Amino acid sequence: MLTSRLEHDFLGERAIPADAYYGIQTLRALENFNITGIPLKSEPLFVQALGYVKKAAALANRDMGVLDPTIADYISRASDRVIAGEMDNQFQTDMIQGGAGTSVNMNANEVIANVALELMDKPKGAYEFCHPNNHVNCSQSTNDAYPTAFRIALNNKLVGYSQALGELADAFAQKGEEFQNVLKMGRTQLQDAVPMSMGDEFKAFATNLREELLRIQDSRNLISEINMGATAIGTRVNAPTGYAETVTEHLRAITGLDLVLAGDLIEATYDTGAYVQLSGVLKRTAVKLSKICNDLRLLSSGPRAGLFEINLPPLQPGSSIMPGKVNPVVPEVVNQTAFYVIGADLTVTMAAEAGQLQLNVMEPVISFALFTSISYLTRACHTLREKCVVGITANAQHAEKLVRNSIGIVTQLNPVLGYETAAEIAKEALRTGKNVYDIAVTERQLLTQEKWDEIFTFENLIRPHYIQ
Amino acid sequence: MLTSRLEHDFLGERAIPADAYYGIQTLRALENFNITGIPLKSEPLFVQALGYVKKAAALANRDMGVLDPTIADYISRASDRVIAGEMDNQFQTDMIQGGAGTSVNMNANEVIANVALELMDKPKGAYEFCHPNNHVNCSQSTNDAYPTAFRIALNNKLVGYSQALGELADAFAQKGEEFQNVLKMGRTQLQDAVPMSMGDEFKAFATNLREELLRIQDSRNLISEINMGATAIGTRVNAPTGYAETVTEHLRAITGLDLVLAGDLIEATYDTGAYVQLSGVLKRTAVKLSKICNDLRLLSSGPRAGLFEINLPPLQPGSSIMPGKVNPVVPEVVNQTAFYVIGADLTVTMAAEAGQLQLNVMEPVISFALFTSISYLTRACHTLREKCVVGITANAQHAEKLVRNSIGIVTQLNPVLGYETAAEIAKEALRTGKNVYDIAVTERQLLTQEKWDEIFTFENLIRPHYIQ
Amino acid sequence: MLTSRLEHDFLGERAIPADAYYGIQTLRALENFNITGIPLKSEPLFVQALGYVKKAAALANRDMGVLDPTIADYISRASDRVIAGEMDNQFQTDMIQGGAGTSVNMNANEVIANVALELMDKPKGAYEFCHPNNHVNCSQSTNDAYPTAFRIALNNKLVGYSQALGELADAFAQKGEEFQNVLKMGRTQLQDAVPMSMGDEFKAFATNLREELLRIQDSRNLISEINMGATAIGTRVNAPTGYAETVTEHLRAITGLDLVLAGDLIEATYDTGAYVQLSGVLKRTAVKLSKICNDLRLLSSGPRAGLFEINLPPLQPGSSIMPGKVNPVVPEVVNQTAFYVIGADLTVTMAAEAGQLQLNVMEPVISFALFTSISYLTRACHTLREKCVVGITANAQHAEKLVRNSIGIVTQLNPVLGYETAAEIAKEALRTGKNVYDIAVTERQLLTQEKWDEIFTFENLIRPHYIQ
Amino acid sequence: MLTSRLEHDFLGERAIPADAYYGIQTLRALENFNITGIPLKSEPLFVQALGYVKKAAALANRDMGVLDPTIADYISRASDRVIAGEMDNQFQTDMIQGGAGTSVNMNANEVIANVALELMDKPKGAYEFCHPNNHVNCSQSTNDAYPTAFRIALNNKLVGYSQALGELADAFAQKGEEFQNVLKMGRTQLQDAVPMSMGDEFKAFATNLREELLRIQDSRNLISEINMGATAIGTRVNAPTGYAETVTEHLRAITGLDLVLAGDLIEATYDTGAYVQLSGVLKRTAVKLSKICNDLRLLSSGPRAGLFEINLPPLQPGSSIMPGKVNPVVPEVVNQTAFYVIGADLTVTMAAEAGQLQLNVMEPVISFALFTSISYLTRACHTLREKCVVGITANAQHAEKLVRNSIGIVTQLNPVLGYETAAEIAKEALRTGKNVYDIAVTERQLLTQEKWDEIFTFENLIRPHYIQ
Repeated sequence: MLTSRLEHDFLGERAIPADAYYGIQTLRALENFNITGIPLKSEPLFVQALGYVKKAAALANRDMGVLDPTIADYISRASDRVIAGEMDNQFQTDMIQGGAGTSVNMNANEVIANVALELMDKPKGAYEFCHPNNHVNCSQSTNDAYPTAFRIALNNKLVGYSQALGELADAFAQKGEEFQNVLKMGRTQLQDAVPMSMGDEFKAFATNLREELLRIQDSRNLISEINMGATAIGTRVNAPTGYAETVTEHLRAITGLDLVLAGDLIEATYDTGAYVQLSGVLKRTAVKLSKICNDLRLLSSGPRAGLFEINLPPLQPGSSIMPGKVNPVVPEVVNQTAFYVIGADLTVTMAAEAGQLQLNVMEPVISFALFTSISYLTRACHTLREKCVVGITANAQHAEKLVRNSIGIVTQLNPVLGYETAAEIAKEALRTGKNVYDIAVTERQLLTQEKWDEIFTFENLIRPHYIQ
Repeated sequence: MLTSRLEHDFLGERAIPADAYYGIQTLRALENFNITGIPLKSEPLFVQALGYVKKAAALANRDMGVLDPTIADYISRASDRVIAGEMDNQFQTDMIQGGAGTSVNMNANEVIANVALELMDKPKGAYEFCHPNNHVNCSQSTNDAYPTAFRIALNNKLVGYSQALGELADAFAQKGEEFQNVLKMGRTQLQDAVPMSMGDEFKAFATNLREELLRIQDSRNLISEINMGATAIGTRVNAPTGYAETVTEHLRAITGLDLVLAGDLIEATYDTGAYVQLSGVLKRTAVKLSKICNDLRLLSSGPRAGLFEINLPPLQPGSSIMPGKVNPVVPEVVNQTAFYVIGADLTVTMAAEAGQLQLNVMEPVISFALFTSISYLTRACHTLREKCVVGITANAQHAEKLVRNSIGIVTQLNPVLGYETAAEIAKEALRTGKNVYDIAVTERQLLTQEKWDEIFTFENLIRPHYIQ
Repeated sequence: MLTSRLEHDFLGERAIPADAYYGIQTLRALENFNITGIPLKSEPLFVQALGYVKKAAALANRDMGVLDPTIADYISRASDRVIAGEMDNQFQTDMIQGGAGTSVNMNANEVIANVALELMDKPKGAYEFCHPNNHVNCSQSTNDAYPTAFRIALNNKLVGYSQALGELADAFAQKGEEFQNVLKMGRTQLQDAVPMSMGDEFKAFATNLREELLRIQDSRNLISEINMGATAIGTRVNAPTGYAETVTEHLRAITGLDLVLAGDLIEATYDTGAYVQLSGVLKRTAVKLSKICNDLRLLSSGPRAGLFEINLPPLQPGSSIMPGKVNPVVPEVVNQTAFYVIGADLTVTMAAEAGQLQLNVMEPVISFALFTSISYLTRACHTLREKCVVGITANAQHAEKLVRNSIGIVTQLNPVLGYETAAEIAKEALRTGKNVYDIAVTERQLLTQEKWDEIFTFENLIRPHYIQ
Repeated sequence: MLTSRLEHDFLGERAIPADAYYGIQTLRALENFNITGIPLKSEPLFVQALGYVKKAAALANRDMGVLDPTIADYISRASDRVIAGEMDNQFQTDMIQGGAGTSVNMNANEVIANVALELMDKPKGAYEFCHPNNHVNCSQSTNDAYPTAFRIALNNKLVGYSQALGELADAFAQKGEEFQNVLKMGRTQLQDAVPMSMGDEFKAFATNLREELLRIQDSRNLISEINMGATAIGTRVNAPTGYAETVTEHLRAITGLDLVLAGDLIEATYDTGAYVQLSGVLKRTAVKLSKICNDLRLLSSGPRAGLFEINLPPLQPGSSIMPGKVNPVVPEVVNQTAFYVIGADLTVTMAAEAGQLQLNVMEPVISFALFTSISYLTRACHTLREKCVVGITANAQHAEKLVRNSIGIVTQLNPVLGYETAAEIAKEALRTGKNVYDIAVTERQLLTQEKWDEIFTFENLIRPHYIQ
């Protein structure tokens, strides 16, 4: 039995493992690119999207009369197998490659050609019946097929991410309900400010993250603009008239996505603006998640020498030396994920800036950065929700005690006493260690007990109303 | 004549220059903050916006019955002077300060109080008649007044920036029209690809930048959400019921901007998401401008040992040693501006991530970064348009010669000869230095002269149609 | 009286203000570059360094016999006036320019030529007697003169910065001495860990910053490598044999700096590695300063609902609404400065990456970023020391109370009881609110009162010794 | 046969797979941290370094008399198995975790305890004979053991990286020799400047990269400072007197590295300065590699409409549509690697800035970023050398033709004709398309044929000497 077959391209001839569906150009890519060790198949949605693109192209080429309908049908069926994830392990190309995605596109072309040949009962490599370039890649260039597949994959990947993020926001909102009647000190600049409801604090986390869902949707709209039919540089060279529109229609139907053909194909072929925008959105969410996790860590600091307003669920012993110590390990891992994503955004920025003339050759590292960031963020959202947020409890008594003992409540006396008198009380409280009540009511008699009681009800501390 | 007056706050008493409209808290800020040496007045739109906020607050406080209508009227008139730019030189606080903008807010409160006192014929510092905190800052906190003013200023500043960017895009579009019939080689990965129209290349620059106008508009929408009435941390403490809505209405009327009150005031008081988003948009535009300028520099490289497809207008001798050398100095300065803006985006990112609990205290450096980036980008757009784009000329003959002599035109033979035969011709051309015509038509006779002529018309080179 | 004189270059003729020492090329630069609005003269050390370079070049050219000794002498004397800072206001070119510094170099050449002419009793612009290019710029190119001046200026600017940073470290060390016997809770991951001396905490800040002084010295060594004599691209074209070595000798003597001629002038002419390294060092210090300021803000949080271990000197009222509130405004402004510097490092990174072939044309934005970062950091160090660190006081009683009441002290029982028993005690303490002593000694009688007393002396808490 | 065993910690009891050498805390980590999917074992040098640390600690504990010599010996032998790489697959913890490395440290403690038990012929989990915390982790905390192991691993990993980088530099130097007599146009700002030797251009690449080897050595020195014996926060709590010094001695002996005990253990326990510095060095090298790859892509642009001075070895067909197109895929992939590394540096920066008080909890993401960057850069250096640099050829004739036909050679007439006359010649050449010789010698007769010949010898073009 043969263990290899020979294939050739214009650089020469090479032996391919007999059972490989990929061909000579994929082989070269495997040899040439060995940076991350992370293969294309680790993003199955990307492989799937390549299947969508090749299927749509085959159908459009058939419609335009530039591809034999029988061959088109075989390509379409072969693409279905790729779409179904059955050929994933044939996509071994390193996630970062030179060549602007040519190796990825040719990997798809070769695999689909050989699957089609198999369906035709032809041996692998019998490209005269179905050729990776002439048939599978017909009317296409890497420069339209690759970014289109990339955009479809991003679009689909964002669905799972949005869901994870939405569920996290919901978990915060639910805690917001649960903590609605927990009175606590609000803090600005880490200094005691004025009282508030812990429920409102957690609801604000939910609000903060829900805004991100809208931004993700904006991004999905931008990346839904594709350039199929642009071919090499956007001039549509070698694509039949009307092909771009037809293939876009097929892609919309096959993927169920609201894809739109770009108005300026020259521009669309090199533009990476949509990736920069999406990366910026991921970064923004990372910034927010990091801020929220910083807050969770602050609020749960202690247990005796910190704020100790909330408890995070204990997940693992926190120290190999300090017995009983439990650390906020989940917020910590989310912080770190955020720093990764912010770094990856810089990678995208630099790669986008490095585009030249009619193409941005750095798109593979952009895809690597974006796919990785979305994956990590998705997992971080799940982890934060499941392992942390849903199990948070409030130390309500301690939190209220901090408020009652605070100087910050003096702010609520402003409308009655004016800012300057209130400031004097605060200053004395700080100097002497006394509390506001003793100074204002007992010693200085600046307001009556009744007025004090009217102002400092639990209800008015947690949800202040204007009292003059 | 007195050269100073005494003012006090709860930290003590200080002498203020007699003619200063600012007061003791501004004086302390001037002493405490000395980092950039760039004063607040260098952003007159920000000073103006503080005037808008204070005026609207006075009117709303009057409406709610918590501020004497006469005092409110004086504050309103004093604010008008600030809005008109008459008091700009009283805003000397360094652009970066600690205190989350308190110094900026108090600077405005003090100046407006003293202008109001002047209108009342009272001496400066007679705060019993109009007090910076009790009257001018009534129902406000720095934590709502400052970000609201900041957002109004950004909104207005983006108008001029959008215009400059739009005009730059128009200039590229106009060059696109002018160069419509210049045939040139398209390049991908710096390698000769397929022919195109230079006009389409320049129109693509216009398309690329016009997309930014939409993104700027998105940003303006996000920063139009304000939190007036949130006061210290979003609980509305010390603000009368209904005040938040009323002051927002007044601000909409006074500014003419489509401002919206945030739905979650707790969240809105600490959230810096809109700044991160705007900064991301500025960065995206910077990335695009840098890419375009890289292209302009590449295309004008030479004159003898470069691409030399276009000429940039010569602006200054390019070398102190190399006679006659002229450099692409304007694209170069725009590249550098872009790098500045990308760096400033990182500053914004880090400042946003550093927010804690109920406030982001790092907002001043965010404002410094955003104002500076918008200013620099606006000037860069003007410079690029006026000093460079409008004067670009094409070396049409040279550009066409490069196409005719290229190997890349072989792509147009794909539909006729197939990818592999075309590749063999290309390979031979490269090896021997021959041109495609000689190999394909003369030597190998793979297509007739007629077919060649049909395919390689100027029209079909510059705007290819599918020919099989 | 004439208000202008005519000058010409190979692009044409222009009127120059009669009293201007600068000439036509500076005029063009003023027109072409208008991005930051910050002129070259805002960095007087840079202007001075241009004087050094021009003087050394004149002397070397005289030595090599390629410049008339009389002219050389006039250039040298004119350069002295630039070095002395007398001509600063003639350097109005915007800090960011295209042209890789040509405008800066020509600004110096023109000013020095005209000052030399004045010394000769010739009218300004009479360049036949002393020409900006042929005489002042003799044997030079912008590409060696500009980076050499830049490096000299950086070198000198780092002196003041090092001193400010060293003094800040000293201030922390002094506080370390002062707080040596303040017992406090050490914290890891914001959770109570084990006790420590507050003095050691502050001494560690000193150690942390003193390491930076060594890194700055490393940077000074790297930027002391210069490329004078490289001329246009490092081939020494138009410079007499031996000139490079001679001019370097003169520069060493004039500046007193340990300057070294680069071994590979081709590489040295485009290399920006030393700037990237220096920028990285500035960033590293910024990261450390930001971490330290975060700590100061955490430790001074409160006063009632925070850690409240230290007090920062109150500098200004902290709120326009919350009476008596005082904020850590100086650490806050230092945090923001750090974020600026970290952003500027990215600017330097991108500018360095954008170098092409024989030159990095982006050097002006690198100079802008580095000069600004050093200035801001220097001022931040002064501010942090003077306005904050020297005035910090400890709340020693409160800090010790937190320790005595903590669970973290259980760690000190590990050698006696083993990790698992200690962990059980900790767990019970957390669950019940009891303290470690009650559980370990009173209830469980796991160790005697004597053993407890031996382990938990003040001395052993603050500076633990191993007790089994 | 049992498929699991029970283990417990202070949070409860869990079933561990019977054949697992890791224990309950590792199990919890596997459940809690699932972000990257990349396990610790993917960095075998890190696992090895944990073995070094545990072995040295056991020996030091034995020496200090706090660990039974027999147990110490078993731990030492178990550590040897980890060092030898035999236990790698027991290290499955995700590269990014919360807990500041506690999970990594406990993973090592548990695996070594169970290997030691196996050597003792005890069942797994019989920790009374050898306990992960009490014995393996004796006198240690995660906070000293983890960073020490990390630093040892980095140190060793940098050896392979330095070698790869050095070999790449050597390859450039060798090409420099080969191309020594290739005359080519030097370019500044993408404009023709003055002639040079292509050999010098390639030697400069070597110089540029060799400087990095020195910077890597600096980094190795910084990361050789360790904090063993600091235990939890640097106070040496629970470590016997003299232990820190003894364990450091053992580690030096075992690893062969020049490790040094930090002078200030409090500072050393939280300081991440050495990582920031190393990351900055990696970034600097990335910047240089990216610049060099940009140059290689520029110089090989064409083949007909670009610079075409050099040929990169063709590795794979460059286009799925453009026949015969070959792209600079290896420089492209190196550019992308550089962008990744620059992004990772930002991750390190942010993680370093996020440290708080006595520990930086973000160290795991720092380790992930640094290990990944070093791996990628190492592979990028190998790839660039093997697949690209060694196969580069020069188009010497074409390169010389560009020089002879250039205007830039006019610079060499400066000393003879002066800058202004030379500039006029240049201007006319540009305007008319004539060459310098025709204008200077034939038409204007500004210099004789003999002078021309003297100046424009091949030798003087490629290595100019001063001729007046």
